[in-house]
Amino acid sequence: MNRRNVYLQMSSVADARARFLARFPWSDRRRGEDVSVADSVGRVLLEPAFARVSSPTYHGAAMDGIAVRARETWGASDLEPRELAVGEGAVYVNTGDAVPEGFDAVVMIEDVQAPDEDRVRIEAPAFPWQHVRKVGEDIVATEMLFPRHHRVTPWCTGALLAGGVATVTVVRKPRFLVIPTGDEMLDPSELGEGVPAGAIIESNSIVLAGLVTARGGAAFRHDGLRDDVDEIGRVIASGAETYDAVLVIGGSSAGARDFTKRAIERAGGEVLTHGVTVMPGKPTLLAAVGDTPVVGVPGYPVSAIVAFDEFVAPALDAMLGVHREERRIVSATPARKIASKLGMEELVRVRLGRVGGDLVASPLPRGAGTVTSITKADGILRIGTDLEGVHPDRPVDVELLRPRAEIERNLVAVGSHDLCLDVIDDMLREREAGVSLSSSHVGSLGGLKALANGRCHLAGSHLLDPEDGTYNRSWIARHLAGVPVKVVHLVTREQGLIVARGNPRGIGGVEDLTGSGVTFINRQAGSGTRVLLDYELSKRGIPAGDIAGYETEEFTHLAVAVAVLSGAADAGLGVLAAARALDLDFVPVTSERYELVIRDDFFDLAPVQRLLDVIRSPEFARRVEELGGYGTAETGRLVRRSG
Amino acid sequence: MNRRNVYLQMSSVADARARFLARFPWSDRRRGEDVSVADSVGRVLLEPAFARVSSPTYHGAAMDGIAVRARETWGASDLEPRELAVGEGAVYVNTGDAVPEGFDAVVMIEDVQAPDEDRVRIEAPAFPWQHVRKVGEDIVATEMLFPRHHRVTPWCTGALLAGGVATVTVVRKPRFLVIPTGDEMLDPSELGEGVPAGAIIESNSIVLAGLVTARGGAAFRHDGLRDDVDEIGRVIASGAETYDAVLVIGGSSAGARDFTKRAIERAGGEVLTHGVTVMPGKPTLLAAVGDTPVVGVPGYPVSAIVAFDEFVAPALDAMLGVHREERRIVSATPARKIASKLGMEELVRVRLGRVGGDLVASPLPRGAGTVTSITKADGILRIGTDLEGVHPDRPVDVELLRPRAEIERNLVAVGSHDLCLDVIDDMLREREAGVSLSSSHVGSLGGLKALANGRCHLAGSHLLDPEDGTYNRSWIARHLAGVPVKVVHLVTREQGLIVARGNPRGIGGVEDLTGSGVTFINRQAGSGTRVLLDYELSKRGIPAGDIAGYETEEFTHLAVAVAVLSGAADAGLGVLAAARALDLDFVPVTSERYELVIRDDFFDLAPVQRLLDVIRSPEFARRVEELGGYGTAETGRLVRRSG
Repeated sequence: MNRRNVYLQMSSVADARARFLARFPWSDRRRGEDVSVADSVGRVLLEPAFARVSSPTYHGAAMDGIAVRARETWGASDLEPRELAVGEGAVYVNTGDAVPEGFDAVVMIEDVQAPDEDRVRIEAPAFPWQHVRKVGEDIVATEMLFPRHHRVTPWCTGALLAGGVATVTVVRKPRFLVIPTGDEMLDPSELGEGVPAGAIIESNSIVLAGLVTARGGAAFRHDGLRDDVDEIGRVIASGAETYDAVLVIGGSSAGARDFTKRAIERAGGEVLTHGVTVMPGKPTLLAAVGDTPVVGVPGYPVSAIVAFDEFVAPALDAMLGVHREERRIVSATPARKIASKLGMEELVRVRLGRVGGDLVASPLPRGAGTVTSITKADGILRIGTDLEGVHPDRPVDVELLRPRAEIERNLVAVGSHDLCLDVIDDMLREREAGVSLSSSHVGSLGGLKALANGRCHLAGSHLLDPEDGTYNRSWIARHLAGVPVKVVHLVTREQGLIVARGNPRGIGGVEDLTGSGVTFINRQAGSGTRVLLDYELSKRGIPAGDIAGYETEEFTHLAVAVAVLSGAADAGLGVLAAARALDLDFVPVTSERYELVIRDDFFDLAPVQRLLDVIRSPEFARRVEELGGYGTAETGRLVRRSG
Repeated sequence: MNRRNVYLQMSSVADARARFLARFPWSDRRRGEDVSVADSVGRVLLEPAFARVSSPTYHGAAMDGIAVRARETWGASDLEPRELAVGEGAVYVNTGDAVPEGFDAVVMIEDVQAPDEDRVRIEAPAFPWQHVRKVGEDIVATEMLFPRHHRVTPWCTGALLAGGVATVTVVRKPRFLVIPTGDEMLDPSELGEGVPAGAIIESNSIVLAGLVTARGGAAFRHDGLRDDVDEIGRVIASGAETYDAVLVIGGSSAGARDFTKRAIERAGGEVLTHGVTVMPGKPTLLAAVGDTPVVGVPGYPVSAIVAFDEFVAPALDAMLGVHREERRIVSATPARKIASKLGMEELVRVRLGRVGGDLVASPLPRGAGTVTSITKADGILRIGTDLEGVHPDRPVDVELLRPRAEIERNLVAVGSHDLCLDVIDDMLREREAGVSLSSSHVGSLGGLKALANGRCHLAGSHLLDPEDGTYNRSWIARHLAGVPVKVVHLVTREQGLIVARGNPRGIGGVEDLTGSGVTFINRQAGSGTRVLLDYELSKRGIPAGDIAGYETEEFTHLAVAVAVLSGAADAGLGVLAAARALDLDFVPVTSERYELVIRDDFFDLAPVQRLLDVIRSPEFARRVEELGGYGTAETGRLVRRSG
């Protein structure tokens, strides 16, 4: 039976962080090291930097011309030019040359007449210090160039060197020991062609090491440890002596195999917080072993990132003595209702895009295990502990993860998924169009509804009208009444039954889905593929109830293919490319039209036009045809002009 | 005589950049290299990255509990619990374990009763895939993880590894050869205690190398070259063959010793642009040697940075295939009128601070040689070619150089300069107060006027009333009528005559300033020191006209000290700390009160209170006393409560 931990008392993020940061004598443990100015970029000064010399170091000519004594030029005019002897009253200087002692002004060469080599003539007086860069004009010796805890930029190196500073004392990089744990973990260095059954590729230590490094720390990755509380405890204890902080990945939850809490206690540590009211990130564990902070980082990748952002990063900033940079906040409209658990702070990863006047936030998958939900995100929408969710009626604050300008160029597609959309996104990048395509997959009908509500620029759709065999037309008439749209043909594509390799059930077509022992995997209602299936069934007079698995729904072609690959189902309707992607067999059923429905009012936007340029290029057709199962004869044709 | 170049035709920044970027086949020359995912952070993908395996790789339990077949649980309720045999209908699983083949749901351990080791009992049905992380829920094998030209973040390494990708092909770092030139240049490695007369510390190559590196390129610094057109030409020619780009620093102007243009021509290059209508940055030279871009970077440090930002950075982005990230723009009010030359685009470096409702932009020194004007800047105010300047009446756009949040915490001080202000700024950083002090030095009276106009939070002032010997009171009454302020005493400080070491002129006091051959250096009208000088002169009945140099004005104590150090003047009135800083002698004249005048409406702001905390700390007194010439007996006392 299981021996289980429990969360004794969960803390809010703010409370847990405050307790954690108050626990350690950060500034006492801050150490310095001397580095050359050239190597100091990105580092943080331990002490203020003072200029050792002035800059300029001498009075220098700021122009090519002659150096003069200003008083000797007074009264010069075009009627009464003043003549000066070269070498006495005037000395030729080039820009940057020292102004000779006793001289205090420079006359530009353009304003100097030279009747011969020994004389010059000027027709206007010079004022003192004209065209002279004076000693110390930029920097005066002994002045403070930068205060302590200043982060050195490339520009700063210019000021330091100009001030005669060749070496600076910077805060030594805080050293983080990163320890992955877990029996099932496969070290990335052992990654071959595939992954052994039941294994999980250990990626969190690389992510955390990258985050520590990017923020100015030094990360040291320990070899992965098995689930052995003694061994983990020993490594924590010795790490706490040698490093400035220890991160233990995995095992921080309250499950039977979660050893981190016990291992920290065995290492003589004090647990400050176990369990935080935040999702993802709940199983975070904050502890001290001596005066070394130890963080039990949850094993789900998004939880690990949240634990870093909320606890590890502020600790690293405190070690360096820098102030936390908050993410920029923008106001956005949720694309749909997002429910959340009362008492938990939820960090929803969202895509953002400017659709008409609104910045629209579309939620990405919410699972803590979905690392792509953070890599695809443009921002984070925090739903506070006191809320049960957010609603399109009320704007929300979103923390930006990408530059605002980049987000403003996002094209927002909502609707049916097709692999061609990835090709479009890649080609937009390849062309450096400065545009990217952000697509959410909610099925064709969901896309048309999002268009109607002004939540996207365009929708991919392949909705068959069973009455006349046309695509999209009647659906647009029904769901987009009064919203003028144009329709651009993207591709024709083969839909068919995705079956296991070798087709072990011998499925020859839709009629075989009722066969005994055959389990089907369906697509969600409102998807074009579901409409197609229902049409094909009704054409053959097959009742949906006769098909085992009809009620089990997936949201993408690839998810259907995965269900077949894993043996959860024997067949599902989908595109050839999805079957190919997972090396499955494919029984063709029919060919359909996949089109882009674009709102009239967005059609002339530059990003939309860039997308059309891509679609209409020969390279797009070539790349799509390589995927298999696609026809591009009409690709890019405007099949509905508006209305 | 001088042999001079001329700018044949100057181009606007936009035209010059467009011509430069259009000249080179950037994408043809882009090369890839394979790096491990851990080493790919910050790099740019050459090709899209596709998942090689799905993630999760198996159906895994998302909870500790028992795996079941959902169908076998249907109908279970608290009245009719369902009993399952362990090992047959139920299998114990921990979070992360594979769900055994044929099973499709997990029941949480909390909902499982175990009457004995062989049986479990549940009181509710499970739905299919409940608490199961399905194969490919996050990533499906073959899907595109990131498109080409994506810049890898630490987060992305998690998605790549989860998708079974251990190595990625990234764009090879573009290699930049950076060549400093100029006879007068001192290599930073030769920087000893001082700088030889007439030498300039070569810092631009370090700054440019740092900028190239920070933006994703690889920089190689050539040894400094003398002003020798043949040698420079040879190095450019060979650099253009070996590197992806060549930057030649200095000599790009139209002066007599400006050899870059001729050297490029000698290297067989084609000059695309010589002279750009931008200040700083005018003498930028853009050229091609074969298909290698060569940039003649001006030698003044701010010009060099502008040339990098406007031309080199976009070229580097094009080499990498990434899109340019524009700086964030904010609207701000110029603190004063700023004139600008018609036909030239001027980049004015500004300090920013939120004063009341307005974001106020205070211009920093405008010289191209003033590197501290860029390191101290919060933003850049571009005055277009079609404008003759900007005015406080009309808000302007400012490009941010620092995070907005940091700027919002700036305390804006305008007024008299004192070294204690640097100590305050450093101590605010040391305390990690998240506040910094941005001070502009325009003299005491200028500070009071800025306070009256709502352009600053506080002003440093030491204005003597010659009638009654008080400080600031009568001046505040006259210049801040109707503007309630509080006054906090900062320090008393000794003012005296700063004279050369050993006091060669034997100056014993103000009365000696009229001595024959003695040259004085004055402070600007409106400064407290000037008021003090005039008071001391009138007390002694000395007419200003009797003092040689009375009309020559400097703006800071240190500038006065520099004038004395360089021999331009024999004496100037200033504080002891300035004399000490440059190792000069000091003849005490009097002691004065330096106070902070703070607007009532800003007095309770947190940043102001943090500043007062600093002033009132024993450490502040200690550090100020170490500077010499300061008294701190009343430091921090509120000497005027309001009104």
